[in-house]
Amino acid sequence: MSGGTYRVIGTRPIRHDGADKVTGRALFGADVRLPGMVYGYVLRSPYAHARIRRIDTSRAEKHPGVLAVVTAADLPTGPDRLIDLVEGTLPVSYARANVLARDKVLYKGHAVAAVAAVSRHVAEEAARLIEVEYEPLPPVLDVLEAMREDAPRVLEDLRMREFGELTDKAGNIGEHFRHVLGDVEKGFAEADVIVEREFRTVMVHQGYLEPQSATALWNQDGRVYIWTTTQGAFSAREATAWILDLPVSQVRVTPMEVGGAFGGKIRVYLEPVAALLSRKCGRPVQITMPRRDVFEATGPTPGTYIRVKMGARADGRITAAQVWMAYETGAFPSGQCGFGAICILAPYDIPNVLIDGYDVVVNKPSTAPYRAPGATQAAFAAESVVDELAERLGMDPIEFRLKNAAREGSRRADGLKYQRIGCVEVLEAMRNHPHYRAPLEGPNRGRGVAMGYWFNIGWYSSCTISVNPDGTVNLVEGSVDLSGTRTTIAMQAAEVLGLRPEQVHPVVADTDSIGPTAVTGGSRTTYATGWAAWEAANDVIRQMKQRAALLWEVDPEAVCFEHGVFRSGDRSMTFAELAERLEETGGPVIGRGTVNPSSAGGSFAGAIVDVEVDPETGKVTVLRFTSVQDAGTAINPTAVEGQMQGGSAQGIGWALNEEYYWSPEGAMLNSSLLDYREPTALDVPPIETVIVEVPEPEHPFGVRGVGEANIVPPPAAIANAIYRAIGVRLRQLPMKPSAVLEAIWSKES
Amino acid sequence: MSGGTYRVIGTRPIRHDGADKVTGRALFGADVRLPGMVYGYVLRSPYAHARIRRIDTSRAEKHPGVLAVVTAADLPTGPDRLIDLVEGTLPVSYARANVLARDKVLYKGHAVAAVAAVSRHVAEEAARLIEVEYEPLPPVLDVLEAMREDAPRVLEDLRMREFGELTDKAGNIGEHFRHVLGDVEKGFAEADVIVEREFRTVMVHQGYLEPQSATALWNQDGRVYIWTTTQGAFSAREATAWILDLPVSQVRVTPMEVGGAFGGKIRVYLEPVAALLSRKCGRPVQITMPRRDVFEATGPTPGTYIRVKMGARADGRITAAQVWMAYETGAFPSGQCGFGAICILAPYDIPNVLIDGYDVVVNKPSTAPYRAPGATQAAFAAESVVDELAERLGMDPIEFRLKNAAREGSRRADGLKYQRIGCVEVLEAMRNHPHYRAPLEGPNRGRGVAMGYWFNIGWYSSCTISVNPDGTVNLVEGSVDLSGTRTTIAMQAAEVLGLRPEQVHPVVADTDSIGPTAVTGGSRTTYATGWAAWEAANDVIRQMKQRAALLWEVDPEAVCFEHGVFRSGDRSMTFAELAERLEETGGPVIGRGTVNPSSAGGSFAGAIVDVEVDPETGKVTVLRFTSVQDAGTAINPTAVEGQMQGGSAQGIGWALNEEYYWSPEGAMLNSSLLDYREPTALDVPPIETVIVEVPEPEHPFGVRGVGEANIVPPPAAIANAIYRAIGVRLRQLPMKPSAVLEAIWSKES
Repeated sequence: MSGGTYRVIGTRPIRHDGADKVTGRALFGADVRLPGMVYGYVLRSPYAHARIRRIDTSRAEKHPGVLAVVTAADLPTGPDRLIDLVEGTLPVSYARANVLARDKVLYKGHAVAAVAAVSRHVAEEAARLIEVEYEPLPPVLDVLEAMREDAPRVLEDLRMREFGELTDKAGNIGEHFRHVLGDVEKGFAEADVIVEREFRTVMVHQGYLEPQSATALWNQDGRVYIWTTTQGAFSAREATAWILDLPVSQVRVTPMEVGGAFGGKIRVYLEPVAALLSRKCGRPVQITMPRRDVFEATGPTPGTYIRVKMGARADGRITAAQVWMAYETGAFPSGQCGFGAICILAPYDIPNVLIDGYDVVVNKPSTAPYRAPGATQAAFAAESVVDELAERLGMDPIEFRLKNAAREGSRRADGLKYQRIGCVEVLEAMRNHPHYRAPLEGPNRGRGVAMGYWFNIGWYSSCTISVNPDGTVNLVEGSVDLSGTRTTIAMQAAEVLGLRPEQVHPVVADTDSIGPTAVTGGSRTTYATGWAAWEAANDVIRQMKQRAALLWEVDPEAVCFEHGVFRSGDRSMTFAELAERLEETGGPVIGRGTVNPSSAGGSFAGAIVDVEVDPETGKVTVLRFTSVQDAGTAINPTAVEGQMQGGSAQGIGWALNEEYYWSPEGAMLNSSLLDYREPTALDVPPIETVIVEVPEPEHPFGVRGVGEANIVPPPAAIANAIYRAIGVRLRQLPMKPSAVLEAIWSKES
Repeated sequence: MSGGTYRVIGTRPIRHDGADKVTGRALFGADVRLPGMVYGYVLRSPYAHARIRRIDTSRAEKHPGVLAVVTAADLPTGPDRLIDLVEGTLPVSYARANVLARDKVLYKGHAVAAVAAVSRHVAEEAARLIEVEYEPLPPVLDVLEAMREDAPRVLEDLRMREFGELTDKAGNIGEHFRHVLGDVEKGFAEADVIVEREFRTVMVHQGYLEPQSATALWNQDGRVYIWTTTQGAFSAREATAWILDLPVSQVRVTPMEVGGAFGGKIRVYLEPVAALLSRKCGRPVQITMPRRDVFEATGPTPGTYIRVKMGARADGRITAAQVWMAYETGAFPSGQCGFGAICILAPYDIPNVLIDGYDVVVNKPSTAPYRAPGATQAAFAAESVVDELAERLGMDPIEFRLKNAAREGSRRADGLKYQRIGCVEVLEAMRNHPHYRAPLEGPNRGRGVAMGYWFNIGWYSSCTISVNPDGTVNLVEGSVDLSGTRTTIAMQAAEVLGLRPEQVHPVVADTDSIGPTAVTGGSRTTYATGWAAWEAANDVIRQMKQRAALLWEVDPEAVCFEHGVFRSGDRSMTFAELAERLEETGGPVIGRGTVNPSSAGGSFAGAIVDVEVDPETGKVTVLRFTSVQDAGTAINPTAVEGQMQGGSAQGIGWALNEEYYWSPEGAMLNSSLLDYREPTALDVPPIETVIVEVPEPEHPFGVRGVGEANIVPPPAAIANAIYRAIGVRLRQLPMKPSAVLEAIWSKES
């Protein structure tokens, strides 16, 4: 907006979906009810690794109340192609093998067959009658073990991609890449202090409360209708269509409200299976995962092994950084190590960098993104080393970071040169925050800080805006609303149109009713779909100027629009007045907007945390937590703060308690919300937030994504705080009581 | 399309909604199921005319299972404004009074109160506990009686509009208008033969099989959600909002599939009542009319009294026509007499015309449009007189009509000068049809012909088209599909885009998801929404040319598109190839199209019918029936033929059997489908069809509306055939056995 402050941007309106969410009216995945609908149940592997010798479904098929049984034999074997999963790509053959195992099961919980029946209980009972003959194979469960030549092979056909080229190297390494800046040996030679450490993290889950649920109808005319809880109607459409070997437009996906996702509801698990069952029985089929399946069979985040070596001069300048990082991708390759590599050193301007990264398959569930995928594990490693370096140099950890902070023109490890970014501003806001200066007294207490980065993605979005005769507008968008984006997108349209946010009626449409729009993920939605709404709103104004010109008999160029009023000379008309006269001036007005921006500079976040460690039990209590993040222009500060608080809380859980706990045979032993320890309100203090606003230079309003960077700093900040509290550095997540105690004991011994 | 034949227009593709309709998957009004939904029942007046002294709902409110009771006291009394109902306008105060009577009931079946309860049966039981104290008033039931000064007053505040101006004349006449061409006295003076006759018709119903059903949710945030069987989501939105005194955008209407409408599902009856009940009980409320209420309380077509006087010279030229016509509008004024006046002489070029028309309120249900509203009754009168004139002059009835046929430049009675029309072509097709030349032997058999006209409306429509990466497109439209318009609109988009019709996926959207679009009625949908689709498709092509230009690094002007292929120099790309590359060239492509055409020249239809009359019983059997109609360009000939056959069948029913049969007190005595005699397959022979194609000059493809004109000729054609069979002219509808017998007896006596 040229010249002048915003009227809508920066305000805190009530969410458009507020009433439905608080009254229970909102319909989530499992709320779908269709005439004649039946229920599905998925039979899953009890083994982490086994060959399937034979599946006999005959007894299940004869069970009373059963309408259909499917196995991988019902899946097409059509052409392979790459599904774009935001966190990288996945060949459709692997996506198929994940929804129903064909020859081998690759993890405990891997889907083997599915039953549709008159009730969920009958379906489950019948599934137990399916006889599967397995030949158990030795599983490989650890990322470093999996990289050994003699390790059991998870995928027989996997060949390593090395430095961007497919090789003929068989094994469990999906990809080995390398980032090089400068000369790392020369850099270390210039260093006065060098720190090198190893770090390990284990799988954690996004922990959304709503389980996966999909309903499918394979209609008699060949069209497939899907209702599902998903982050992306169009990505679910593409994945489902390709797995079923259909053109994408033969599938119509209606996205339901989403009860938490955080990256875990991008891939499809149940949709193609429900569709196959529906094709067989001619009825709509709904499958909802039990909690156990959510843990065992959707995508957690990778466990990792990361080695970081950094050197700095006595004056505080980091001269070199070397990273060796290996990520478990679960049963199929993914690209999260690459994301970790982009982010791990991103807050710093380091002249000499060498990063080697490895994506490694293991016999665990196929991993999926979790809020800044790959970055949190990486920051845990790098920010611990940075903290140690600062300590060794006797510098304040924020001042040390500021001395090395990335800024416009700095190069990221992957070579990208930053545009205007807010790293320095975030660090300065941390330094100047009362929390950082507040006294922290008492034994076993410590304060830690850390930085985090997420690069945010752009990608394609579509919007249409139509004008109502009462002066309001309807906004149709393809972006699933996970966190209030109906409102942040509507606000951007309202700003252009001179309306109040509640005068924009947003609709999250199905895939038949709006243009393609990429997944809600990568912190892209307020950025890219908001941009598309800006385009659509400007398209509306362009047309309405023509209408005003028609009524006033002037040239459209002579009509201007500002603050909701059209003017030409001394004539003026409000948006609402002109909206009422569209019929007589040529018919309704619809604006359209589509964009496909490339990602921009991303968002930096910092955390300041105070902890107290109980040396008797090893329990870490978070006393105070401050989250600082560069939002670019904060469209709706309430929504930004909500993201910062949510990401911080998840980061605290990841730091202190959450983990997949494995049996030696590769079975998850804590696959319930009783045993998988997510933080509760008692574990997390009120999260203080500081929004830093360094507008993103490409976006019309300066928006940056804000959904992810905030989860990145907490584990490292807490590790650094624990060190200040009790003098031991934990280099493994979660920093659960037993791990803290062991660290204390090993320091004492 | 410049130069070249069409590839899609004129073909007969399978309907997009075909599978859903034949498998029972399609969801109609009463198929809506919402969580927590309860059911409503409307209490209706037992009197045709009475003052309401008191309503006591207390016993009903206390009845177990009752959640809410509403009366007119729950309706707002907000500002009055005119609701545009296609067939004219209705003050919102009258629309309110029709959905819930306030001081007086104006017809038997008039809604008085409504109950929401846990089941429809409980609601009905509770409604019987509502005590209404009535003061019965004398009803007025006949149009001519109602015009008398001493007649009971239906609406105390009604003042006559005369020649376009509101007068202070109180009474039952809503409007008196006059059309004048030339000098009718002079015209009659030039005539060698003059025929003057009186005609009467009674109310008939559209006879759709799906009863009215509306579901409403008044949400806690103040938005009102409506799911309903309607011809127009946007007209239902406007009427519901205004009756409830809300801004239109506070109401979201989702149109369900429609099981027949024919004009009868434009007005709202249940929607505001269900909404008021929902507001009181906080739950979604569904009300479905019993068949009795459909007959007694929705809008049938007016009964009429029409006097026609026509004169012709011995050479066959009609010199003058004078018409005096009065239409019963039911309890509230409407404008159907005006439509009858436009159509009554429309097939002829008559130099001297005088028409006086009267809309008159009576104590019967408020009338609504029925397929070419007002025209069928009018044509019954005029085409009988034309037939008699031709006979008196010894001319063939088609030759006589051809001699006087309207053509480009002729003036309609209301003064409109025709553009290119197909009246002559329709008459020639009738004359040349084998049916007209076929021998018709045997006693009591006769052949009749008649012409009919409907002017078709334009009005506003909106479409968006988005391109799928697989080379198909999604088309979002606001037009409810009554008769296959998803397909006829998709075909127009497909023609522009070089696609097959099945590559266009049409969506009939709710009022939040597309721009305003007028009602499906007036034969406007294929015409106007098809035009909007043409605009949207061209907007797509315009943008895709830019994308091709970007890829080829040429000027967008240098890219041409023909038959689905983009070309520039020797480079080419199919639509599908380019569709796959939109992401990389700037993002998705959405096209938008909106139109608001004024009505064009309309459509002429003719009928040739052979009947046999049983002189013992008076039963008329239709032996053969041929319908001829100018469709302009026939987008989908199968759909056009379907319209012609449907309209003809309804015209046959209206001609021979259908009628509202009244008690002297104004109660309909045959309000069930057992007693209201609609034609069955046994009553209607196969309808032969001849499509005449005289393209409409304004429309990009030359479309004319085809939904209505076909119902106009049958009653007159059958009357003329009966005359040829047994020598008596029936001047009253229906020409039921008793009426035929009486005519035979009165001729014999």
